[in-house]
Amino acid sequence: MSAPSKGESEIAAIRAMLGAKPRPVGWQERRQRIEEVGAATPVAADVALETVSIGGIDAEWSIAPGSDPGRVLLFFHGGGYCSGSILSHRALVTEAGRAAEVRTLAVNYRLAPEHPFPAALDDALAAWRFLRQAGVAAHDIVLGGDSAGGGITLSLLCRLRDTGDALPACGWLISPWTDLTLSGETLASKDAVDPLIHRAYLAELRDAYLPEDVDQNDPRVSPLFADLAGLPPLLIQVGSDETLLSDATRLAAAAGAADVAVTLEIWPHMIHAWPLWNARLAAGRAALAEAGAFMRRHMGR
Amino acid sequence: MSAPSKGESEIAAIRAMLGAKPRPVGWQERRQRIEEVGAATPVAADVALETVSIGGIDAEWSIAPGSDPGRVLLFFHGGGYCSGSILSHRALVTEAGRAAEVRTLAVNYRLAPEHPFPAALDDALAAWRFLRQAGVAAHDIVLGGDSAGGGITLSLLCRLRDTGDALPACGWLISPWTDLTLSGETLASKDAVDPLIHRAYLAELRDAYLPEDVDQNDPRVSPLFADLAGLPPLLIQVGSDETLLSDATRLAAAAGAADVAVTLEIWPHMIHAWPLWNARLAAGRAALAEAGAFMRRHMGR
Repeated sequence: MSAPSKGESEIAAIRAMLGAKPRPVGWQERRQRIEEVGAATPVAADVALETVSIGGIDAEWSIAPGSDPGRVLLFFHGGGYCSGSILSHRALVTEAGRAAEVRTLAVNYRLAPEHPFPAALDDALAAWRFLRQAGVAAHDIVLGGDSAGGGITLSLLCRLRDTGDALPACGWLISPWTDLTLSGETLASKDAVDPLIHRAYLAELRDAYLPEDVDQNDPRVSPLFADLAGLPPLLIQVGSDETLLSDATRLAAAAGAADVAVTLEIWPHMIHAWPLWNARLAAGRAALAEAGAFMRRHMGR
Repeated sequence: MSAPSKGESEIAAIRAMLGAKPRPVGWQERRQRIEEVGAATPVAADVALETVSIGGIDAEWSIAPGSDPGRVLLFFHGGGYCSGSILSHRALVTEAGRAAEVRTLAVNYRLAPEHPFPAALDDALAAWRFLRQAGVAAHDIVLGGDSAGGGITLSLLCRLRDTGDALPACGWLISPWTDLTLSGETLASKDAVDPLIHRAYLAELRDAYLPEDVDQNDPRVSPLFADLAGLPPLLIQVGSDETLLSDATRLAAAAGAADVAVTLEIWPHMIHAWPLWNARLAAGRAALAEAGAFMRRHMGR
């Protein structure tokens, strides 16, 4: 046996932090926990933050020194449509903006179960329109999201394509949840190694988000089953220790078959949405560096 | 209708060239055709070539100005185990070496049906040992291949892992043929758009390569079904207009699930092994640039 590498001990420490408390129960406790975990990484001192209201929805601008204020990463946080916030994902979004050398706009879209489908998607579209009406060109915007936020990102891309809108430069998906029917084979095969995401939890989130009259395989909520033709280039990043691994690999195959330019990165031993912990995880910083390079390239920089 | 873009007209011209003659019949005619098509792109004037014999197998060194002679891309050409050569793939291999800033070693491994499995793999292993015995460190070598050469690359990687050899820095697979059982769904769904590779042709190649006592799903010939754990980082590049698209997407999913660092790129509207035509195809040059950056990064440059 060799000693664990720095990367192994870093992810082990993240796993230990996540497992240090019992799993939260109920929506309020879950929302509190994800914000605690997020706030454990303070935002870097050189990042400027500014709150903004988009038709009553809270949002937050961020910019790091040297970034281009005329280009924007519009980001939708994860949390299973039922939790997550600007605060929980601030260390991820702000550092992604630094890597891409752009401003970021993070959106507190409405959450289920209080606000089921299509509230989150309506708010995502409102944020897009807000940016466009502020004079930001579509090709100067990147859409991004992790987990459920990846699903929102894909669904918004399809909606913009359907309505003939100009499309953003590219899409960036971290550990996206793309299939609310829960049919991916890694839900079972990776269950033992995933510290966060399990089938029963996903089913509970899905049932909270979906009204009774919307099918689980409706492409607006399960964009894996959407017509993906005409979407801009996609970067999909996923860890190998994720039950949602096959939500990412099947999306890559489907989007590529539909003639979308796809880059899929599978990161060994990484867990769900690991770039959240970039401050303590070299592989989180490396993933953001790759994503930043991808975004800069597709924005023509 | 908008006018076709430069990219569309370039790939249309390649398709026209490939379709200008009737499909060749028989091994000799096929071997001649792939060399003709390859020789249609002369090697760049600034590339130095040198032939070498590896235990009776012809091989060729190449190096472009500014490249590091101490680092090597060891490349296995495609051609379905039955055709292809140093000559047919020279424009691909030499420009890949330029992009990676390394020397290349291309190998005329023995072809079926005269030399069925395991002749090609034995020659690939001999080329690896030749390099190592010449004093090149494993981490200064990248293994690469297209189509059947991608299968050889994967099979050699698994063999080196099994025997406890030091492993190369990374693997680079273009349009790899990984499944000799021909079970990929894009064999049917992409049949109409793929100008080169169809099920009956693949079955003929497979039957020529496989001795009667070797199963189609033997992991040495169908590395999609191999244990892929412990392999070095892989870059897999494939076009969206390929019947072998799902040989690439399924490999990415399998290798990633086995904790291999995987990058999969799906290139819209590109055809089988399109970087062969890099001289006339911007997307071929762009794919080589991406591959070069990947190889440099994993060789620590």
